[in-house]
Amino acid sequence: MVYIAVMGHGVVGSGVVEVLQTNHQGITGRAKEDIRVKYILDLREFPDLPYANLFTKNFDDIVNDPEVKVVVETMGGLHPAYEYVKACLEAGKSVATSNKELVACKGAELLKIAQERNVNFLFEASVGGGIPILRPMSQCLAANDIYEIVGILNGTTNFILTKMIREQMSFADALAMAQKLGYAERDPSADIEGADACRKICILASLAFGKHVYPEQVKTEGITAITLPDVEYAHSDNRVIKLIGRAKILDGGHIFAAVYPALISRDNQLSSVDDVFNAVMVRGNAIGDVIFYGRGAGKLPTASAVVADVIDCVKHLQARKYLYWEDGEEGYVSDPLEDNVRLYVRGEADDKAAATAEIRQVFGDVHMLSRAGEGEKELAFLTPLSTERTLRQELGGMQHLQAASILHVLD
Amino acid sequence: MVYIAVMGHGVVGSGVVEVLQTNHQGITGRAKEDIRVKYILDLREFPDLPYANLFTKNFDDIVNDPEVKVVVETMGGLHPAYEYVKACLEAGKSVATSNKELVACKGAELLKIAQERNVNFLFEASVGGGIPILRPMSQCLAANDIYEIVGILNGTTNFILTKMIREQMSFADALAMAQKLGYAERDPSADIEGADACRKICILASLAFGKHVYPEQVKTEGITAITLPDVEYAHSDNRVIKLIGRAKILDGGHIFAAVYPALISRDNQLSSVDDVFNAVMVRGNAIGDVIFYGRGAGKLPTASAVVADVIDCVKHLQARKYLYWEDGEEGYVSDPLEDNVRLYVRGEADDKAAATAEIRQVFGDVHMLSRAGEGEKELAFLTPLSTERTLRQELGGMQHLQAASILHVLD
Repeated sequence: MVYIAVMGHGVVGSGVVEVLQTNHQGITGRAKEDIRVKYILDLREFPDLPYANLFTKNFDDIVNDPEVKVVVETMGGLHPAYEYVKACLEAGKSVATSNKELVACKGAELLKIAQERNVNFLFEASVGGGIPILRPMSQCLAANDIYEIVGILNGTTNFILTKMIREQMSFADALAMAQKLGYAERDPSADIEGADACRKICILASLAFGKHVYPEQVKTEGITAITLPDVEYAHSDNRVIKLIGRAKILDGGHIFAAVYPALISRDNQLSSVDDVFNAVMVRGNAIGDVIFYGRGAGKLPTASAVVADVIDCVKHLQARKYLYWEDGEEGYVSDPLEDNVRLYVRGEADDKAAATAEIRQVFGDVHMLSRAGEGEKELAFLTPLSTERTLRQELGGMQHLQAASILHVLD
Repeated sequence: MVYIAVMGHGVVGSGVVEVLQTNHQGITGRAKEDIRVKYILDLREFPDLPYANLFTKNFDDIVNDPEVKVVVETMGGLHPAYEYVKACLEAGKSVATSNKELVACKGAELLKIAQERNVNFLFEASVGGGIPILRPMSQCLAANDIYEIVGILNGTTNFILTKMIREQMSFADALAMAQKLGYAERDPSADIEGADACRKICILASLAFGKHVYPEQVKTEGITAITLPDVEYAHSDNRVIKLIGRAKILDGGHIFAAVYPALISRDNQLSSVDDVFNAVMVRGNAIGDVIFYGRGAGKLPTASAVVADVIDCVKHLQARKYLYWEDGEEGYVSDPLEDNVRLYVRGEADDKAAATAEIRQVFGDVHMLSRAGEGEKELAFLTPLSTERTLRQELGGMQHLQAASILHVLD
């Protein structure tokens, strides 16, 4: 018998208790231990639940109980989740969490404590919900040098963009629908402004390249400025707009990391990842491109990833697992404006012929786009490849074109 | 320093040596050991290789050398691979193999020996080449009851079908092109008749459901009978034809397992897995649907999966890993004709009006298909849902229609 505690009885936390009960027999067989929940920490009352007797409002009950070997953290947010998790690890308890903010902001520190105490700190559920990604990535890593990760990491924004692409809904209408269906929160900013995707690419890049990447180091752009004309121009070139998180290794011990909406070619397998689905493409020097695909959120998928981590903790109560990365440092993430890119530009011309001539003069070989119902002064095109800094400078210096939308292009 | 041996210096075996050399630094860091190849077993001579001194033609050199802790088997085929692997495990050496025939035919027996000797028998590369599937599946399994697996498991047939679908090539022309490009062997029968996919679904089903499934228990149908009219009829209903391996759990301790070409709906994510790519969909009760996607073959992807297994063996020289299943038994795989299915039928009518009337009379609510250039006496339709046995009996008893092609339908 191994006792665990669950901190936070929200959507994921209650799912963890449910999965442990529903699949109890199979889990016991695989963990070779009977796993029992001893405490559930929540400030709210749940008097009608059959397991109401397990609730406590006092964190000390958990951290001071030597019988509790594994603690699940599904409270979300940084505080007090950080203090609680740290205290649990320092008390020699393994921790499994779904909290991406915690891992993205404090991962290196908590992994170090776990290493020192010879316990586990696992967080498979923090990226891609139920999709196994971090473990398989560790495995890819074992024999491969991973050089790039590109992912559709946020289901809410992918749902909104899918509605815009397939049904020509406006951004506002698609967001309202996502909220109605429970895919977006009342305050949707963490999703639509990219912070959620940013935390996930931080975790993936930290694991893949071995050093902590902090959210404030990652240039992050959301989807609030995407319009239907952008969607239509993308379509005219056989592309779709997706919010992606991307990280790649550069020369000289630096990495590139960013979150932005991009016009993805229909030939890219990521272009067909629709609705609330997530997908992560991992590119390794020997393995080639591998994609992990599934629902990136949801109560039971996420809970089942947490429970898989719990089982792993129970099977390795006194053995540190493979997950580890060093602390990061200033300057580790290079200036993304130095990246070589193609950009999509939509703008307003004072004179279309003059603007087209100027575009060709400045950029040379551009790919002009068109759409049905194009405005009289509207122009859109894809630039050739150059550093983002150069391209933006050239766009800023144009006489006849005012850029209204600038997006990345991914082939 | 840990010494290993590589048995078989073909495409995958030479790739293993190459990956170990190219990524030596990273591998040493992750394995926390310097992994060195001490012997390479091959009957051929490779005098010009820089590591020509490692070759031996004598298996006894390997099995009798106590310094060799891990043996890689990339010879392929059942004999002598089976005898060699068995002897290595019995001598207390861990084994990593890419040999799907070996695992599909002898997995339970070899896993049992590995368990008794407290060593590892790992075979990630045997399914999906470099795509991590078996380990992530074990992880899905930890917290989930997996109830179904559907996969596109053979790259050669997927390439051929993609050419037929996209470029209206005939089966024979597409096969010739696959052979020219090196995707199909000179004797392509193991691929096109489904035996390769069958071995892989055996391995996946054995792992997912805990009991060995033997190739001879799995009804297997290849793609040699697929014609362009079938591809066109599928297209008219927004479907594509793919060769799939499928296994699912049934009531009463039985499972369903089969390999067959199926008309897959374009709404199914598997429908966009094209060319030589593979994908495996795993369906769990908590996790929902998860897909693993990538190149299912190729020298370096497959070799990197073998090397990841080698690293895992080195890190657990005296600890058995999670992979395990029991021996199977007669009757474990139920008669697939009892499965509830929809079928696609293309046939020749003696009189089209009479045949259509008879089809409606026999099957009730059918979905008639049509294509440009349809033959005068040609008819195609999708049946309603029923057991395959019933549907085939009814088709066999028809007066006005002679079925020329019967395929499964997957939504």
